Amino acid sequence: MSKILVQKFGGTSVGDPERIKRVAARIKSYYEKGYQLVVVVSAMGDTTDDLIELAAKISKNPPKREMDMLLSTGEQISISLLAMALAETGVPAISFTGGQVNIVTDGNFSNARIESIDTARLTHELSQNHVCIVAGFQGVDVQQNITTLGRGGSDTTAVALAAALKAKECEIYTDVDGVYTTDPNKVDGARKLSQISYDEMLELASLGAGVLHSRAVEFAKKYDVVIHVKSSFNYNEGTKIVSENDMMEKILVTGVTLKNDDARVTVADIPDKPGIAAELFGALAEKKINIDVIVQSSGRAQKGSKEEKTNTISFTTPVASVSTAQEVLSALTKKWGAGSISTDENIAIVSAVGIGMKSHTGVAASMFKALADNNINIEMISTSEIKISCVIAQERGKDALRLIHHVFGLDNVA
Amino acid sequence: MSKILVQKFGGTSVGDPERIKRVAARIKSYYEKGYQLVVVVSAMGDTTDDLIELAAKISKNPPKREMDMLLSTGEQISISLLAMALAETGVPAISFTGGQVNIVTDGNFSNARIESIDTARLTHELSQNHVCIVAGFQGVDVQQNITTLGRGGSDTTAVALAAALKAKECEIYTDVDGVYTTDPNKVDGARKLSQISYDEMLELASLGAGVLHSRAVEFAKKYDVVIHVKSSFNYNEGTKIVSENDMMEKILVTGVTLKNDDARVTVADIPDKPGIAAELFGALAEKKINIDVIVQSSGRAQKGSKEEKTNTISFTTPVASVSTAQEVLSALTKKWGAGSISTDENIAIVSAVGIGMKSHTGVAASMFKALADNNINIEMISTSEIKISCVIAQERGKDALRLIHHVFGLDNVA
Repeated sequence: MSKILVQKFGGTSVGDPERIKRVAARIKSYYEKGYQLVVVVSAMGDTTDDLIELAAKISKNPPKREMDMLLSTGEQISISLLAMALAETGVPAISFTGGQVNIVTDGNFSNARIESIDTARLTHELSQNHVCIVAGFQGVDVQQNITTLGRGGSDTTAVALAAALKAKECEIYTDVDGVYTTDPNKVDGARKLSQISYDEMLELASLGAGVLHSRAVEFAKKYDVVIHVKSSFNYNEGTKIVSENDMMEKILVTGVTLKNDDARVTVADIPDKPGIAAELFGALAEKKINIDVIVQSSGRAQKGSKEEKTNTISFTTPVASVSTAQEVLSALTKKWGAGSISTDENIAIVSAVGIGMKSHTGVAASMFKALADNNINIEMISTSEIKISCVIAQERGKDALRLIHHVFGLDNVA
Repeated sequence: MSKILVQKFGGTSVGDPERIKRVAARIKSYYEKGYQLVVVVSAMGDTTDDLIELAAKISKNPPKREMDMLLSTGEQISISLLAMALAETGVPAISFTGGQVNIVTDGNFSNARIESIDTARLTHELSQNHVCIVAGFQGVDVQQNITTLGRGGSDTTAVALAAALKAKECEIYTDVDGVYTTDPNKVDGARKLSQISYDEMLELASLGAGVLHSRAVEFAKKYDVVIHVKSSFNYNEGTKIVSENDMMEKILVTGVTLKNDDARVTVADIPDKPGIAAELFGALAEKKINIDVIVQSSGRAQKGSKEEKTNTISFTTPVASVSTAQEVLSALTKKWGAGSISTDENIAIVSAVGIGMKSHTGVAASMFKALADNNINIEMISTSEIKISCVIAQERGKDALRLIHHVFGLDNVA
């Protein structure tokens, strides 16, 4: 088993000199256990925002290459300070920018993708028992221009390094203990998961907000890297994100989520012609409107003297996108000479996620029955291989969440 | 004639977003004249001090490699902001860290020396009519570790780039107009020099304080780079620092200086044995005590029944070093069983510098006569090929300075 451990600390964990010293103390405790450590850090606290503000005073639309040159200094400051803090505790440490450890990306400034990592320097330093501190969020393109990886970039750096170094695992330290069966602020019985699969984690992205960026999870899945989400405030075991094959048991439902900030948009009496749905969602995509649940149903409408087959398409989208969506749809219904648009912002989406659903039938039925037994009307249903989502009235959202959490046996029994 | 011009702006010139915009406007005016521009900048205002303070909160004695990693971010921030400011005015600009333009140094962190520069990337960008903005004060060693060049580092970067690119000249922008015949705050008639040779500039270091670091001048001398010291507040011609051969006329005396912060230390009755002076100055050097003027004279002292030959050694050293010097000397006189130490802090050193002295005799005589005619007693004399220094009573310092400035015809006649 590899003795290499990758640890990633976010901007809050290294927000000031005192916190940097605390992170150094934690790293030291692992160093003394004999691990070979590669530590990825983000920029201190608000540094990145401060730099963005500084640039805004000079240009409203700065060249992206220069923004990346500017923003990458944030991580460079934290890595040097953390290396100093480790040296101060007697642990030999050495810091590296993304470029110095050959994190090579494409040339897509501000949102670059990692293409390769040459681990020669890191491997050499690890063999000398040095702790390697690597700047997250950044790399260089083939011309040595500095690039940044966009949102969640430091998580991605950590996972990519763990993959390249074939590390034991990639620990991501956050301000929460791990991934929960549901939002502990909404359900008292929410339980911390010891394990979850990559796909479940991706579906539970809304639970993962602030925990892990989807891009890092996708990267981990691709290269089979075990991510261990832990709290930087204690030494508890967190949640391991692993491949489906490594799951100890395939739990039917791993987590349930509730979304309250979506609205339902319904377009009725659409003429039944091929390509209509593609045109509709194509037009919405062009305006970068995110869509979650989609349902289409057929009916019949009186058109002059004859009855014609028509369709009704309903979808959910963030409340903030509703007015843009309405504009797009009005133009389309005008063009089609048919269709009426209605919206409902008073909805909630409750979802159950679990890879166990792949092999077990009856999960959807249990969920629907539980809702029905409690007089919660289901307005829309959408299912994927490992997820069931129901659109319901917003005022019943929390009830539904607790109910489903309970029905699938997720409550903390302690 | 090369169309390449290197321009260097210090930390004050790029101290805030407004000043950065002003620097960009100046660069634009040169760009529009058809120059190919390489611009070197220091860190904004107090950035470097702020970073040093941040490090001090983590470690009293941080590893130098990590300090360089930290401090180099200061220049990286200014280059990106200046490139943005230029882009905003429609001038295509691209910023580079020291490493990105292959400024390779030795591995002496915090005080590295430039060993080579590969100009391929810069030459390519210049051929595309891009303004190249390069971070001053930094480079990388052969292992790609970031190094910094120590005090005056950005000036050295600018001169080194001008040498490597065979630039027309290297403009150094400061808060003064150029180099003066003497300190304008002390002598009303002080005149700005249009030219000065490297050696004169090095001897006039005390006039150059805040203008140019000696290291940059030495580098310019070695590679025959014309340095043009100019003000960042106006568009006047400044002072060109050139090789002796390029001087239009070899003025007898180029500048005169006055130093008030030195003291004279005298050790009398030293036994006349070989190696005594070496031992004395060796011991002082070990304590890093700077010495300026040295004078030795011989005498005879009564030792028991016979007269013996003895020596008196006097030297000048900064007032701040006097007490340490006394400790060192007390130990020595004790060991020798001979010698007495006296000090005088009430002295001034007035010096005249000029390459014309090499070929003209009588310069020293003119200086001594002028002082004598005005009843200024000379306590010590020291001469080099292009410099004459006299130690006099401090209260006559300013008189002597004005007098010598006048005697050698340096007064502004306007």
